[in-house]
Amino acid sequence: MSYVPYHEPNTITMFAGPCSIESAKQLDEVGAALSDLGLSWIRGGAFKPRTSPYSFQGLGEEGLKIMSDVGEKYGLKTLTEIVDTAHIDMVMSYISALQIGTRNMANFELLKAVGAATAENHKPVLFKRGMAATIDEWLSAVEYLTVGGNPNVMLCERGLRTFETSTRFTLDISAVPVVHKRSLFPICVDVSHPAGQVDLVPSLAKAAIAAGCDALMIEIHPNPPKAKSDASQQLTLPDFAELLEELKAVAAAVGKTIV
Amino acid sequence: MSYVPYHEPNTITMFAGPCSIESAKQLDEVGAALSDLGLSWIRGGAFKPRTSPYSFQGLGEEGLKIMSDVGEKYGLKTLTEIVDTAHIDMVMSYISALQIGTRNMANFELLKAVGAATAENHKPVLFKRGMAATIDEWLSAVEYLTVGGNPNVMLCERGLRTFETSTRFTLDISAVPVVHKRSLFPICVDVSHPAGQVDLVPSLAKAAIAAGCDALMIEIHPNPPKAKSDASQQLTLPDFAELLEELKAVAAAVGKTIV
Amino acid sequence: MSYVPYHEPNTITMFAGPCSIESAKQLDEVGAALSDLGLSWIRGGAFKPRTSPYSFQGLGEEGLKIMSDVGEKYGLKTLTEIVDTAHIDMVMSYISALQIGTRNMANFELLKAVGAATAENHKPVLFKRGMAATIDEWLSAVEYLTVGGNPNVMLCERGLRTFETSTRFTLDISAVPVVHKRSLFPICVDVSHPAGQVDLVPSLAKAAIAAGCDALMIEIHPNPPKAKSDASQQLTLPDFAELLEELKAVAAAVGKTIV
Amino acid sequence: MSYVPYHEPNTITMFAGPCSIESAKQLDEVGAALSDLGLSWIRGGAFKPRTSPYSFQGLGEEGLKIMSDVGEKYGLKTLTEIVDTAHIDMVMSYISALQIGTRNMANFELLKAVGAATAENHKPVLFKRGMAATIDEWLSAVEYLTVGGNPNVMLCERGLRTFETSTRFTLDISAVPVVHKRSLFPICVDVSHPAGQVDLVPSLAKAAIAAGCDALMIEIHPNPPKAKSDASQQLTLPDFAELLEELKAVAAAVGKTIV
Repeated sequence: MSYVPYHEPNTITMFAGPCSIESAKQLDEVGAALSDLGLSWIRGGAFKPRTSPYSFQGLGEEGLKIMSDVGEKYGLKTLTEIVDTAHIDMVMSYISALQIGTRNMANFELLKAVGAATAENHKPVLFKRGMAATIDEWLSAVEYLTVGGNPNVMLCERGLRTFETSTRFTLDISAVPVVHKRSLFPICVDVSHPAGQVDLVPSLAKAAIAAGCDALMIEIHPNPPKAKSDASQQLTLPDFAELLEELKAVAAAVGKTIV
Repeated sequence: MSYVPYHEPNTITMFAGPCSIESAKQLDEVGAALSDLGLSWIRGGAFKPRTSPYSFQGLGEEGLKIMSDVGEKYGLKTLTEIVDTAHIDMVMSYISALQIGTRNMANFELLKAVGAATAENHKPVLFKRGMAATIDEWLSAVEYLTVGGNPNVMLCERGLRTFETSTRFTLDISAVPVVHKRSLFPICVDVSHPAGQVDLVPSLAKAAIAAGCDALMIEIHPNPPKAKSDASQQLTLPDFAELLEELKAVAAAVGKTIV
Repeated sequence: MSYVPYHEPNTITMFAGPCSIESAKQLDEVGAALSDLGLSWIRGGAFKPRTSPYSFQGLGEEGLKIMSDVGEKYGLKTLTEIVDTAHIDMVMSYISALQIGTRNMANFELLKAVGAATAENHKPVLFKRGMAATIDEWLSAVEYLTVGGNPNVMLCERGLRTFETSTRFTLDISAVPVVHKRSLFPICVDVSHPAGQVDLVPSLAKAAIAAGCDALMIEIHPNPPKAKSDASQQLTLPDFAELLEELKAVAAAVGKTIV
Repeated sequence: MSYVPYHEPNTITMFAGPCSIESAKQLDEVGAALSDLGLSWIRGGAFKPRTSPYSFQGLGEEGLKIMSDVGEKYGLKTLTEIVDTAHIDMVMSYISALQIGTRNMANFELLKAVGAATAENHKPVLFKRGMAATIDEWLSAVEYLTVGGNPNVMLCERGLRTFETSTRFTLDISAVPVVHKRSLFPICVDVSHPAGQVDLVPSLAKAAIAAGCDALMIEIHPNPPKAKSDASQQLTLPDFAELLEELKAVAAAVGKTIV
């Protein structure tokens, strides 16, 4: 596989897509919409780390196949979360870039294995911050990924566990300038998980762009009320299209374009 | 005293000024700069709630006089923090608007007294969130201020106490859309206290505007290394002027002007 | 008033009583029970810092009179919270010892005034930790109380604001050995506020004694379901009597007696 | 392998041992000391999840062999942490009980695999709380372990990530009564990780017993200053022997014995 650069200067990469891949039809609708909007990536989960073993756990390899097909059909690069060392080869055979989720930031065995597996092909890795990790711990843990030689890692802030209950997590917007000050890694901001509710997503997305982020992650779904996970925080496709116009205006104000 | 409206639609009020009022010369320089930039307010502390009794405690009434003089000379409205019920009449005789600080958000005796004292003249009150207060608690506490009949209250987010140590406090940027969703109060964002370092201030200020804030608080000082409090987080006057241009661009992108 | 020592070696002072003083009858019942159990103090609130202005705010001076009468009748020393500099003389005229509550730990004007007012008579002050204050900040703030010359200050841990929701606050039991390591102040543990529910109180009270505390604060009420504040966390008088026996056994295991 | 019950009524199981297994000599000294003290378990780490990839990562399988030999020689049951699904069979072939560490509480793939692997033989699992997990999340995650049929699970509180810096983590002592109230699982308290310093360990260990814990975890080392990890929080063997006597007195006061 060829080198897939995560980030070019003065661009903001948009990682949009559903929380979970639920069916070929669902993901096809999302892929068509993203393609129409001129975006270059699609994201979605096939293996879901859920709080309870009785919740929907994802479609597994079937989901990866669906995502691979949609990516090919619409010319979109694909991003999905990896949750176990045993899945690495399978996931890499279908997907453009691997995501390490917040619950696995300190699963160092997974980091070592992903770092080693991507060392040769430089396949991109999106590395989310642990919800209770300091930035120091995050920047130390990222070395488990890069020690094997893969420089193609992007960090992703996704909200901290705090006492505040009006949001699902407290987005640490300061992580954007702090990461830029202390490292050379580009930084993504996942605005859907901290928001927990769609009506907060536009404000947080604009704030992330204005703060200087290099990428955004936003959950979208063709029919959010029917989503099998995170129903309350996924935007409809038309609402996302509308939001994208507003985001482009803010991006322009800080000299960037959304891709 | 006439009614001093805090907030007009589609404007962002800039509350800039030094952490502490230190001398007539210091505040005059700040006032001249703010006036030159076309801004309408100046802020600064005369009574400082400091962690240690051996730290600089502020100039007290002398500081209020200095601020009143500077406000009159440059046509700027003035904002200062009030820390004790015994000071209310004195502070109100010199200053346009009163600030309740984060350490006093739950000093309900002070809130009751300020609410009662400002009920007739509708003098504006800027009400900072406690560093460990939920938004629910904050919106409940604000009723101590408004119960007497003063509707002229603005809320101010200023960062939460969390485990993260790379910033002084964790700015809760989500508070901006949450407050707008749950109340009719305008909301200010103090970006200097959560940053704790000047080089993070520009990112946070742009983020606050993009998130939809109605006002910004930024600490500035003619000679930050010599400041008697919070030296590391105050911008120089030229750096502030430069930042203001960038902030205007972001404000324009969300349809607002900075006043 | 003569010097009222807070703490003698190898004793654990019990500060029990209702959250709020509600009536002469209520406090008399509590006083009789405490006296029967051989304890030496009674506590209760007359000025209540409540989250909402529409909640019961306490009986004020009438409550202080009730407490003074009950203290005299049963030979109990009295402890109550002070919330405003304007009340200091009044409270001192009725009550043996003053409590600074968690919401006022950083109300430095109140601390200065209480420190000054108690400097001559060495009236004891119980100084609660702010719910979001580090131990460093707490030990720094206590100097506002002692700088005037009153050495008779006891610290009180009462739980931290964290993300955990199964308790009202997270009791920081480690504060007991940390305070003993870093200072000479005795330390009380308020177990009722962090618990938030009576059934957790016994475990926390035993833990506090075993950890080495010098005093305990426990809320009790003749009829908890009818309490005007904190109904769910106050023990009945018989339950408290039963708990006291268990606490004595743990205290004996660490070489102490409860007074 | 036969059923190894974790917990008998009115006993407190002591899991003592070094942070890391470093050599046969080191672990033999610890095993001899524990055996002399009449205890029944030894704990130690062979695979260490360290913040940085450049820190000591543990002896791996060699460490497991050392621990198996020491257990057999001194008649001690053995406990070690498992960090990857790929190690399950290997670890189970050497060790009596498996520990899931705080960083893996939400590594649900590991939980599922350990739950499945231990379903038949009911090998005990010690399940630590995530440092930022609520008790609700912890009690939900434990079902990943028990869903396969292994009832032999013990929970372990080990401190929360909070803003307080005088301890490494904030021990949530309230977790002991809360877990007893909401579940039938026994609960262990790891006092070494929250303390972070040996001089706080005695207070926390006594508090945990008085609060009602069913087991204790304490790190000990023959020569703490030379330890390859967590040097500052491991007790010497003589200090541990002395502490054990004090702990027995507190245990007796709550009707329990330490085994």
